[in-house]
Amino acid sequence: MRSPPETDELDTPPRILMGPGPSTIDPRVLKAMSTQALGYMDPRFLDIMDDIQELLRYTFQTNNDWTLAISGTGTAAMEASIGNLVEPGEKVLVRTTAYWGDRVAQMTRRVGGEVVPLDVSGTDPLDPDDVAEAFAANDIDVFYICHADTTTGIRQPDMSELTDIAHEHDAYTIVDCVTSLSGVELHVDDWGIDVAYGSPQKCLSSTPGATPLTVNERAREKIQSRASDTDSWYLDLDLLMEYWGDERNYHHTAPVTPYYGLREALRLVAEEGLENRWERHREVAGELKAGIERIGLEMAAPEEYWLPSLNTVQVPDGVDDTAVIEFLMDEYDVEIASGLGELDGEIWRIGCMGYSARRQNVACLLTGLEEALEAQGYEVTEPSIEA
Amino acid sequence: MRSPPETDELDTPPRILMGPGPSTIDPRVLKAMSTQALGYMDPRFLDIMDDIQELLRYTFQTNNDWTLAISGTGTAAMEASIGNLVEPGEKVLVRTTAYWGDRVAQMTRRVGGEVVPLDVSGTDPLDPDDVAEAFAANDIDVFYICHADTTTGIRQPDMSELTDIAHEHDAYTIVDCVTSLSGVELHVDDWGIDVAYGSPQKCLSSTPGATPLTVNERAREKIQSRASDTDSWYLDLDLLMEYWGDERNYHHTAPVTPYYGLREALRLVAEEGLENRWERHREVAGELKAGIERIGLEMAAPEEYWLPSLNTVQVPDGVDDTAVIEFLMDEYDVEIASGLGELDGEIWRIGCMGYSARRQNVACLLTGLEEALEAQGYEVTEPSIEA
Repeated sequence: MRSPPETDELDTPPRILMGPGPSTIDPRVLKAMSTQALGYMDPRFLDIMDDIQELLRYTFQTNNDWTLAISGTGTAAMEASIGNLVEPGEKVLVRTTAYWGDRVAQMTRRVGGEVVPLDVSGTDPLDPDDVAEAFAANDIDVFYICHADTTTGIRQPDMSELTDIAHEHDAYTIVDCVTSLSGVELHVDDWGIDVAYGSPQKCLSSTPGATPLTVNERAREKIQSRASDTDSWYLDLDLLMEYWGDERNYHHTAPVTPYYGLREALRLVAEEGLENRWERHREVAGELKAGIERIGLEMAAPEEYWLPSLNTVQVPDGVDDTAVIEFLMDEYDVEIASGLGELDGEIWRIGCMGYSARRQNVACLLTGLEEALEAQGYEVTEPSIEA
Repeated sequence: MRSPPETDELDTPPRILMGPGPSTIDPRVLKAMSTQALGYMDPRFLDIMDDIQELLRYTFQTNNDWTLAISGTGTAAMEASIGNLVEPGEKVLVRTTAYWGDRVAQMTRRVGGEVVPLDVSGTDPLDPDDVAEAFAANDIDVFYICHADTTTGIRQPDMSELTDIAHEHDAYTIVDCVTSLSGVELHVDDWGIDVAYGSPQKCLSSTPGATPLTVNERAREKIQSRASDTDSWYLDLDLLMEYWGDERNYHHTAPVTPYYGLREALRLVAEEGLENRWERHREVAGELKAGIERIGLEMAAPEEYWLPSLNTVQVPDGVDDTAVIEFLMDEYDVEIASGLGELDGEIWRIGCMGYSARRQNVACLLTGLEEALEAQGYEVTEPSIEA
């Protein structure tokens, strides 16, 4: 027999999570997640699932019947969207030069789809003219749009204009709302989004593991008339909806604790009200942005595309970005992140999401950032926090 | 704007979970799951992942480097096993007449594998002679074995004999340990198992959402020399191990709360000791079995294949199985389950797993079962609980 390893009781440092996610979990969500399990067919558990669906419909601003939580992280929801909506041989328009777009392209190829690259460089949001051109030149079936990009801190405007172009060509839209859901204005139905997914651990401040997804009637019909089964049985939406819908057919054992967390996180959204919540994210992230600019740093995203839930800041010349990140972690237990992929070393990524979007966190972060920069000889223009 | 729905604070009845899973979550696991999140690259979080790996190696009794938790439920781990090990055109030997075997067959076909049905009827475990015959007649690449079947309550004996047959034919074995891991004797390395997966919510008594999986060197080499990528990007083990291994490359945001729960559940296994834990399951389920037989009911599984973690009981003629299940739920808050698929109405399924495997639960269940049967006019042979 192999011997048992020695481990200590779980003991975590009191981090303030201001990176690209997870955000700090709301204490009410933590309390809900310490609740005892129920069986996956317990009538009380099915009621909890119904609550989650209704609360998700509010949060997505949709009437979609097919609204559920996927038993996995945001990446699983991304794969569920691609895997169900895209049939072998179908063409997916995606900005392959973007981090998430590249991932979507990989997933598309794996399920037998064909990638039509929207080859626009830089970090600006998609331009409807480029999209219209791509649609005119290719017979596109599915169009992937990232609404709020955690790698660039860019919020995609013109959502309705983009979905209109797709629909004029009988194509379907998949919108990645991972970093926008409940933190930034989003109207799934009004914007004509066919499939949207979010994240539980960003602006919702729950744990990863049960991820919001919604599918409109039009996309549901496409999925239900597929010529072949989806490659994935686990993420087959038609089978999943037999459990989430009236049939209540067993598919897999529901991740009960993440469901409890998601439900409570969504209740907090309903209590605060979506519009108030969007405004809080703008206000608190606005204070952060103002402080950053007072120090003399520059935001990486232009004002018009600013994404309050994820703020990207240019690393000034001569400053070691990693040393700043480590200083914040070591001295203030504040987590922020470096750039991902090509933006590594170029920017910092500072989340301002859900429960983490609080003035106390911004004050602490700005104080620490100023100290970290000064420790490297960087001269701040004026104090980050207004006297 | 769609209006927010009204919901109440989470309030769950005090169920005793004695069904096929989830089991009652250990209070220490619930406490661990109420711990605040950490970022997925936080050094302290990476230490937690290392702990999980070491604890899983003990629990699986393996030295496998590729030992991890899949970010999904047991079904995701099943799909990860099939999806990574099986290449298009390869042949998978599986008992398609079994509930889980049928699911494996569906997954195999979806990823382009060919199913070789092991067409044995009834609920008896696999007979090595049948397996040897199938291997002699077919060029089999992968062999799926269910070690402990929650649908039949049957424990598969002769595990080494079965894996030996596969290895003599250069095939690989996938073993489903969902209902055995930590509750029933299991030796992944000594039994020559190539890929094994378990469940966090059965004998481990944590939440579903982070599922144990282990892959030996031989299977790892097969996976790493695939001619084509796996269909799933989310469940691509080679990519996942870049996060779980030394590279620490970001793949997806780890389900932090289920990880905390799994770690604490595995610590409880290490503290109790595997052999003691197996013995506890035998003892407590043994009391359950003795009580059931005293009433005059018959166990569905033969003594030699008895699975202490999941006890199947024949429904006597003239008894409404659903009424008994409802009585137990209504009067004692005890959850047991009916048969699945073809066994619906034929058997009850009574779990005795992890934290639920306690004498107090058995006493309550037997009392309630006796009352429920008597309410239907069934005459018990003698009281379920010995005077």
